Amino acid sequence: MPNLITRTESAYADSLLIKSLFEAPIGRNPDQEILYRDEKRFTYRQFRERVGRLASALKNMGVKEGDTVAVMDFDTHRYLECYFAIPMIGAVLHTVNIRLSPEQLIYTMDHAEDDVLLINAEFLPVLDHIKKRIDTVKKFVLMKDDHKPAAAEYVFDFEYEDMLASSSVMTEFPDFDENTRATTFYTTGTTGMPKGVYFSHRQLVLHTLAASASLSSSHSQGSFHRDDVYMPITPMFHVHAWGIPYIATFLGVKQVYPGKYVPDLLLKLIETERITFSHCVPTILHMLLKSPMSEKIDFSKWKVVIGGSALTKQLCTAALNRGIDIYSGYGMSETCPVLTLAFLSAAELKLPLEAQAALRCRTGSPIGLVSLKLADDLSSEIDSDDKASGEVLVRTPWLTQGYLKDHTNSEKLWAGGWLHTNDIASRNEAGSIRITDRKKDLIKVGGEWLSSLEIEDIIAYHPGVAESAVVGQADEQWGEIPLALTVLKPGVTVSDREIINIIRDYVDRGLLPKEAILLKVRIIEAIDKTSVGKVNKVALREKYTK
Amino acid sequence: MPNLITRTESAYADSLLIKSLFEAPIGRNPDQEILYRDEKRFTYRQFRERVGRLASALKNMGVKEGDTVAVMDFDTHRYLECYFAIPMIGAVLHTVNIRLSPEQLIYTMDHAEDDVLLINAEFLPVLDHIKKRIDTVKKFVLMKDDHKPAAAEYVFDFEYEDMLASSSVMTEFPDFDENTRATTFYTTGTTGMPKGVYFSHRQLVLHTLAASASLSSSHSQGSFHRDDVYMPITPMFHVHAWGIPYIATFLGVKQVYPGKYVPDLLLKLIETERITFSHCVPTILHMLLKSPMSEKIDFSKWKVVIGGSALTKQLCTAALNRGIDIYSGYGMSETCPVLTLAFLSAAELKLPLEAQAALRCRTGSPIGLVSLKLADDLSSEIDSDDKASGEVLVRTPWLTQGYLKDHTNSEKLWAGGWLHTNDIASRNEAGSIRITDRKKDLIKVGGEWLSSLEIEDIIAYHPGVAESAVVGQADEQWGEIPLALTVLKPGVTVSDREIINIIRDYVDRGLLPKEAILLKVRIIEAIDKTSVGKVNKVALREKYTK
Repeated sequence: MPNLITRTESAYADSLLIKSLFEAPIGRNPDQEILYRDEKRFTYRQFRERVGRLASALKNMGVKEGDTVAVMDFDTHRYLECYFAIPMIGAVLHTVNIRLSPEQLIYTMDHAEDDVLLINAEFLPVLDHIKKRIDTVKKFVLMKDDHKPAAAEYVFDFEYEDMLASSSVMTEFPDFDENTRATTFYTTGTTGMPKGVYFSHRQLVLHTLAASASLSSSHSQGSFHRDDVYMPITPMFHVHAWGIPYIATFLGVKQVYPGKYVPDLLLKLIETERITFSHCVPTILHMLLKSPMSEKIDFSKWKVVIGGSALTKQLCTAALNRGIDIYSGYGMSETCPVLTLAFLSAAELKLPLEAQAALRCRTGSPIGLVSLKLADDLSSEIDSDDKASGEVLVRTPWLTQGYLKDHTNSEKLWAGGWLHTNDIASRNEAGSIRITDRKKDLIKVGGEWLSSLEIEDIIAYHPGVAESAVVGQADEQWGEIPLALTVLKPGVTVSDREIINIIRDYVDRGLLPKEAILLKVRIIEAIDKTSVGKVNKVALREKYTK
Repeated sequence: MPNLITRTESAYADSLLIKSLFEAPIGRNPDQEILYRDEKRFTYRQFRERVGRLASALKNMGVKEGDTVAVMDFDTHRYLECYFAIPMIGAVLHTVNIRLSPEQLIYTMDHAEDDVLLINAEFLPVLDHIKKRIDTVKKFVLMKDDHKPAAAEYVFDFEYEDMLASSSVMTEFPDFDENTRATTFYTTGTTGMPKGVYFSHRQLVLHTLAASASLSSSHSQGSFHRDDVYMPITPMFHVHAWGIPYIATFLGVKQVYPGKYVPDLLLKLIETERITFSHCVPTILHMLLKSPMSEKIDFSKWKVVIGGSALTKQLCTAALNRGIDIYSGYGMSETCPVLTLAFLSAAELKLPLEAQAALRCRTGSPIGLVSLKLADDLSSEIDSDDKASGEVLVRTPWLTQGYLKDHTNSEKLWAGGWLHTNDIASRNEAGSIRITDRKKDLIKVGGEWLSSLEIEDIIAYHPGVAESAVVGQADEQWGEIPLALTVLKPGVTVSDREIINIIRDYVDRGLLPKEAILLKVRIIEAIDKTSVGKVNKVALREKYTK
């Protein structure tokens, strides 16, 4: 017999709405700062007012509950304002992937049925290509930095700052069902057109609460807390910048939005604003550490979560040697995104850096409320011996409940009631998982699965290698054999044999399965990437193995 | 137009159930410990198994979804097992107030319609009184420590440890509506019979998440995090021991349950188990610091949240001088309970201890998701000048949605859609509130409200005073005048005049309103308390002013 709580008529039933995250810090620390590059400083009090003005402005231009408002911008204070104002009036925030091709942009904006577009002046050349074909968009709003000239060639309906200045401040935001859609964006797979994912107010609030609790309760290492200074270095169009801007605002921390990523500006901000917490893909960190300017920067207070692609031991060790508290996080567009974080225990922090790196490069342990299963089929779980592997299957309250208007892929994603990540992982006794490959990137050699990532990681250690991607090549005898497509650093010569010998050595020492001995190496000019900078193995296989 | 997220048929919709808090830490740190006094040590893995056995045992004895299981115990590992197992099978945990009179016990157990009673052997004399009159209870389970003899005089249906040993381990817990009632207990007001409050799974999960995020993100001071060692010193029957056992388990911290409170054992555990985080009422801390044994204890790693009644500057300063990181929290039975915490900022921590004490004794700032309003009527808020005062009105997702089977009081509690705390507070510019009085304990002198708490706090500073309670006494000229009922320390003589002169001095220095000058003082033997140890002003007024 169900025994639901009764609610007296006058009782107020709180919904989990984004406005509650927004209200949290204002009472506590209204003078805390939100910065845009080295150009603008706002207090949370001013931020609150600007969000109120933006909300009024959108309502005034006719945005209704259920309408979709698209944003194309770099990482700016304006984007943070959109993160709150758009969902808080009951509309849907579409965070447009600014790296898509014009055709993909048109496809996603049409598919999302965008009603309004807020666009940074820097993307006017793109808008040129698509404006006539994004039929659903009724209003255009220009966002530009003060010092940039106005875009005379377009007649925009509004300019962002003028629009805010002439709008009143909305202070009471409406209540509505917590399952109302708040955000939408598109995942760019390596095949087919982008697929739309979507998240409700309830999902974003729960993601914020659970990730806040996990991030801030790891006191000895990697913690994100009230006294931190936050700067995202993952684009805000990309899975809510990992959801951290919501967390940062909820906790009331100082936030610094770096605009378009310029390595030396990022470094300068780290130094002058004393940034203590960031997140990025490995490529960006690599780029920052390579900059000559970085030599003079003190990184010893900087915590960096790495996600998007695997953190290699090489990059991890390099970062640790510079004093950076670096570790892995894991998630994907379909998961809001945070699923796991690779925190170290107090005891593990006493290990030498080399040993720590191995732990920091792991995928990590599930954060609170994440139920994670490694299985080849839904009924049986694999052993926690760090060797057996299975697909990562997930349940947690913040997973996309399907792909937008795509029943077939929605059902595929959720087959059997678990979200299929398509990632293959092992788990150790302490409960920490380690992704060994994408399901579709596993290589089946003589009936045994071989991880391309493990081989890539070893090849990347070679001082002459810039980058490497291992794919399966059809082979009569073995079914598939591994092929390492390798890019060398400029002016360096490395022979195939040299790389193959390194791999042989690992096999001889029992550190790689013996199938790895079949590796072939091919030196190429560049490795194909997807629009979010991930290695495009589909394209590579197409190009080099057919 | 509402725009709710669509869910593909196969998608799993996660509910907010207590089982998700329970599952969180197991994967991460299964060897973490849960202790009972200096007698027993369990790992989280064993705890998980015991909860699974308890759940099976309850099912086997016939407990169904919606049934109520009452517990009468001290702070034990068994109680923690009940916190999880009982709600996780869809039953309601009734945490019985072990300090109630037999008549009140009968009233509450009958009112809650308890089906099963789990009772510590220490309460057999009480059970003697009530057993024949708690008609709804069908099964009795005895809980006892190993070294205690069995209770021969009762034929219990089960003994807790035997029952667990003979039950299988439930590993899959059912899914049900997150609005299912999980817990119930009774508030003991100073008038009328106790009133029942109740909390759903959703409410307890959200309280745990939001309070975890707030407690752990205050890095510089007072934080509760993964590396802490937790010992509650607030009874587990009392508002879920402030909800902290759920938080501790969710974060996977080491937990120490002290059983019946014995000062020297508490002190010993603080030392030997290196307790770093506790919460209690002022009386208990006072008692601990007074114990001669405390002189030898290093308190410098101990964080203590004080609630239940106001933390005085005197006790706060004494604790700070012993190295304790002490601060106030605020909540009540109706609020799950946590509403505010008095964290200090990094800058405030640099102040001298005396100045810090003033901040640590404040009621504090609302934690995340708590919307708090100070108002005399619902429409207008008071100024944030730390002087104006109004009633604390609250909204947050974890408030009781009424009193059990009590429509009149439910509507009174929720009048106008805000939960009425009956506490009167001021707020400063930084958003921190300071409760000045209970609404009903305010004294109206010549048309002006006077706070009894402020006067009590000053009188408590007198070295000869053990305790003091200020109530309003009817007066022809003034309406009411303040009367200080004062208990002296043994063997001390203090005159009325001496106390009155202290208050006059405060009035002269502008630190108290001039109405305080009308204070009368009466020296009495003892101050009446309620069953949870709070000053019973209704009884005092009845006795001394009528």
